[in-house]
Amino acid sequence: MTATTEVPGIVVTGVSGRMGQMLVRLVLENPETRLVGALVREGHDWVGRDVGEAMGGAPVGVIVSDDAVSVIAKAQAVIDFTTPNATVAYAELTAQARAVHVIGTTGLDQAQLDYLNAAARHAPIIRAGNMSLGVNLLVGLTRKVAAALGEDWDIEIVEAHHRHKVDAPSGTALMLGEAAAEGRGKALADLRVPGREGITGAREAGSIGFAAIRGGDVVGEHDVIFAGAGERVVLRHLATDRAIFARGAIRAAIWGQDKGPGEYDMDDVLGLN
Amino acid sequence: MTATTEVPGIVVTGVSGRMGQMLVRLVLENPETRLVGALVREGHDWVGRDVGEAMGGAPVGVIVSDDAVSVIAKAQAVIDFTTPNATVAYAELTAQARAVHVIGTTGLDQAQLDYLNAAARHAPIIRAGNMSLGVNLLVGLTRKVAAALGEDWDIEIVEAHHRHKVDAPSGTALMLGEAAAEGRGKALADLRVPGREGITGAREAGSIGFAAIRGGDVVGEHDVIFAGAGERVVLRHLATDRAIFARGAIRAAIWGQDKGPGEYDMDDVLGLN
Amino acid sequence: MTATTEVPGIVVTGVSGRMGQMLVRLVLENPETRLVGALVREGHDWVGRDVGEAMGGAPVGVIVSDDAVSVIAKAQAVIDFTTPNATVAYAELTAQARAVHVIGTTGLDQAQLDYLNAAARHAPIIRAGNMSLGVNLLVGLTRKVAAALGEDWDIEIVEAHHRHKVDAPSGTALMLGEAAAEGRGKALADLRVPGREGITGAREAGSIGFAAIRGGDVVGEHDVIFAGAGERVVLRHLATDRAIFARGAIRAAIWGQDKGPGEYDMDDVLGLN
Amino acid sequence: MTATTEVPGIVVTGVSGRMGQMLVRLVLENPETRLVGALVREGHDWVGRDVGEAMGGAPVGVIVSDDAVSVIAKAQAVIDFTTPNATVAYAELTAQARAVHVIGTTGLDQAQLDYLNAAARHAPIIRAGNMSLGVNLLVGLTRKVAAALGEDWDIEIVEAHHRHKVDAPSGTALMLGEAAAEGRGKALADLRVPGREGITGAREAGSIGFAAIRGGDVVGEHDVIFAGAGERVVLRHLATDRAIFARGAIRAAIWGQDKGPGEYDMDDVLGLN
Repeated sequence: MTATTEVPGIVVTGVSGRMGQMLVRLVLENPETRLVGALVREGHDWVGRDVGEAMGGAPVGVIVSDDAVSVIAKAQAVIDFTTPNATVAYAELTAQARAVHVIGTTGLDQAQLDYLNAAARHAPIIRAGNMSLGVNLLVGLTRKVAAALGEDWDIEIVEAHHRHKVDAPSGTALMLGEAAAEGRGKALADLRVPGREGITGAREAGSIGFAAIRGGDVVGEHDVIFAGAGERVVLRHLATDRAIFARGAIRAAIWGQDKGPGEYDMDDVLGLN
Repeated sequence: MTATTEVPGIVVTGVSGRMGQMLVRLVLENPETRLVGALVREGHDWVGRDVGEAMGGAPVGVIVSDDAVSVIAKAQAVIDFTTPNATVAYAELTAQARAVHVIGTTGLDQAQLDYLNAAARHAPIIRAGNMSLGVNLLVGLTRKVAAALGEDWDIEIVEAHHRHKVDAPSGTALMLGEAAAEGRGKALADLRVPGREGITGAREAGSIGFAAIRGGDVVGEHDVIFAGAGERVVLRHLATDRAIFARGAIRAAIWGQDKGPGEYDMDDVLGLN
Repeated sequence: MTATTEVPGIVVTGVSGRMGQMLVRLVLENPETRLVGALVREGHDWVGRDVGEAMGGAPVGVIVSDDAVSVIAKAQAVIDFTTPNATVAYAELTAQARAVHVIGTTGLDQAQLDYLNAAARHAPIIRAGNMSLGVNLLVGLTRKVAAALGEDWDIEIVEAHHRHKVDAPSGTALMLGEAAAEGRGKALADLRVPGREGITGAREAGSIGFAAIRGGDVVGEHDVIFAGAGERVVLRHLATDRAIFARGAIRAAIWGQDKGPGEYDMDDVLGLN
Repeated sequence: MTATTEVPGIVVTGVSGRMGQMLVRLVLENPETRLVGALVREGHDWVGRDVGEAMGGAPVGVIVSDDAVSVIAKAQAVIDFTTPNATVAYAELTAQARAVHVIGTTGLDQAQLDYLNAAARHAPIIRAGNMSLGVNLLVGLTRKVAAALGEDWDIEIVEAHHRHKVDAPSGTALMLGEAAAEGRGKALADLRVPGREGITGAREAGSIGFAAIRGGDVVGEHDVIFAGAGERVVLRHLATDRAIFARGAIRAAIWGQDKGPGEYDMDDVLGLN
């Protein structure tokens, strides 16, 4: 069937993790994608099992593997939320396969980013700290509003996440802060005020404050507050389902099928650029 | 003193009302404006009194009058939050004086709007349903976000106002709804869903819902909710001080001093167009 | 194994529905419960299949049945979110089995409630319109705050639900409204104001307003707003996972194991009475 | 006129400050109170002027004074939002006058509190960190909810205030935190987590987190968040008008007229105890 062969074959990495399992499930459900490979790190005890059964469900016909070379060779796209080292290794194989590499991995250092840049000379790489449509939209709005409103409007960024999150502020809160600083033609590092405690003095004009709330199983909420005299504008994003990140990644994998080599982000995918 | 003569002389209409009194106070406080006239409707018992004293404070040297002809003749700008009939009458006198007419009056019908259009051939008219910087910004953002997000994102507009408000939805909520509909290339009348009650059936795709909260002395809060699968984007404006409307009107009066005849709105004043 | 026999055996009704499937999953996961039966309506095409496989997963060793008589005979508890007619029929069988009947079904009429009352003379029935811990707590707080604050604090109840919800206000919003009215010694029917639209006039003192927001896949959010002069108190409940209702029902099934015949609600289960 | 003599005569301290001026205005407006004295610190340039005129309005017939001894001798109540040292001095004079001392001053140390305790043997002292009805209600609800919900519900306290506030968390946020800790039978000092920044590790079970937002002219907003699995309960207070603190103080002054010597708080005034 010709039609089926046009549906891109997707390899998911890190399939034993929470995000990996969600990606497997959504790639299987989506009529516009096929699952053609399921990778785990070398020696993982899921190797050799059907990925559907390993996830506690019915078999789906794809065997979990730790042999990235031969699995990625079959891919039209690799969706990858793993670790910086793993991502760099997958990038080389994906570029060789001329497949789209969708990267949600965070924490890459400059040397690792340079490596991705080199890989992107051979095939498209789509990378984003947060793949939700709403968050990427919020980042753009934040830049615009920060530019439109003068420094007499104070900017505060408040985020809430589940109790297991180990760092603050969230990566998304920092993206929003950078967008706000850009809107004002400044660098975030010069404006950023961390969580307040004790005698802080009055708020410094032009600064950008961050506050982090942690509790329960909150998926992720971000408020960008612009507080002026007698009025406030608030831009808010609420995520209630981690699937939005997986869905965005799958959308990126499909979008990338007809793109040339290069580095892309979600604004490209969403047509916001 | 040359400097003083360059500060525009402002006439405030309806000075015995809540908005009129606030305008008087803010025009007096603002170093960039002078109060040159205080109008009330014919026969009002404040006529002949110092406007500061009539408002319960110290005298300010401006006597309340109901003689619009001679008072407006001295104005560089008239700030007017009154009634449609009064506004039409003031528009003629303001145009004759070649002064800026800032109009916050609502509820004008087409004939009255046509009348203003004719007056604007002689001098600038700046008219807005809501003169707050934040609200006008929110209207623009709403249009943009509605255009960027597909119809699978449901739009709801929620507003809260004080217990004395007699209509629903608020004029500002309708402005936001119109902007959302425009963003989708539709007319609000075709999409609008009023307050829900009883067996409503499932939400119709593409519709725009409105909800109105009334209580206490809430000045005005508006949320534009875009609800997608697993995520939401919310654009929110909070007004906590009615002075924002008066301050916006004064800003408009100053902005208009070097403008030619024509009809303007707050996006012009704020440079958002 | 003595220990195992002390873990109550649960029968879930309506297992092909969304709530039924969630109950099956959570009963299986919970070390304090065993799944001993899975019921569907007569003739359903899941009859005879393993319930785990019918739900798209691995087999769990329980066969779906439409023979309520023999299945319920084995139960220590029946958890039932179905329809009024089905619930009445299950109530008779559950009472005969001297098992706990946990009922989340809504929309029962007086004759059906009388029937449950009769069944409760033989075994415990635990029934609630909403089985979440947080919602039941909110209902109690609403009653208390409405009693503490005078009628100069306006009460508004705002709820948000997903786009598929067909009625407004939600059952939970009405429970909250009834609690507020009780707190003021009144009947909700005398105070209730439906969704506002058009020229409503000023808010009537003592009334209770309702507003309904519909969009996306919002699980359920309720705000009870008390708006006074210059301040507001808001009691808010956010549900982000339908599992809270299923978890509450399972908690009720376990709680009921050592209770005598009678009618109970979630306040009993939660020790709030 | 007998009736008038029963309306308590109020002395306001610190009348040149923002809170002092608001108290003067509200005492004058309130038919249940008379203004009988207006105090400032020694040598203030308002001394000798009519307080109404000094505040920029019409004269009201009360002359500003720095002679606390003779002014307080005429009082039935003294309302005092000043500094710890001033409050201690006023407490002695108020006790001698057998008048009610309403104290909104914050930051008193133990020696100063002991001094107030001694003064309260002669006349009623009503002292509160926050005199709003809503805040005091919220404190009580927070204690109750913290007690009702187990430690698997995480508690976070978020507050927002204007840009001029120099400390964090707010005094009210700390009151709420103490109430939450009490509800769980713990001391706040053992549970308190300050503003988060950097690698914090996962949230510690049972801890109470604080976050502070600063911007614009926000009067004061407090959220107490209880975040459980799949649901949240939020108790929120919004202050939009500083007059609520002044109104609460005046209500306390009236309430105290028929009370015996002793120390009281707003729960006594509001009948919440």
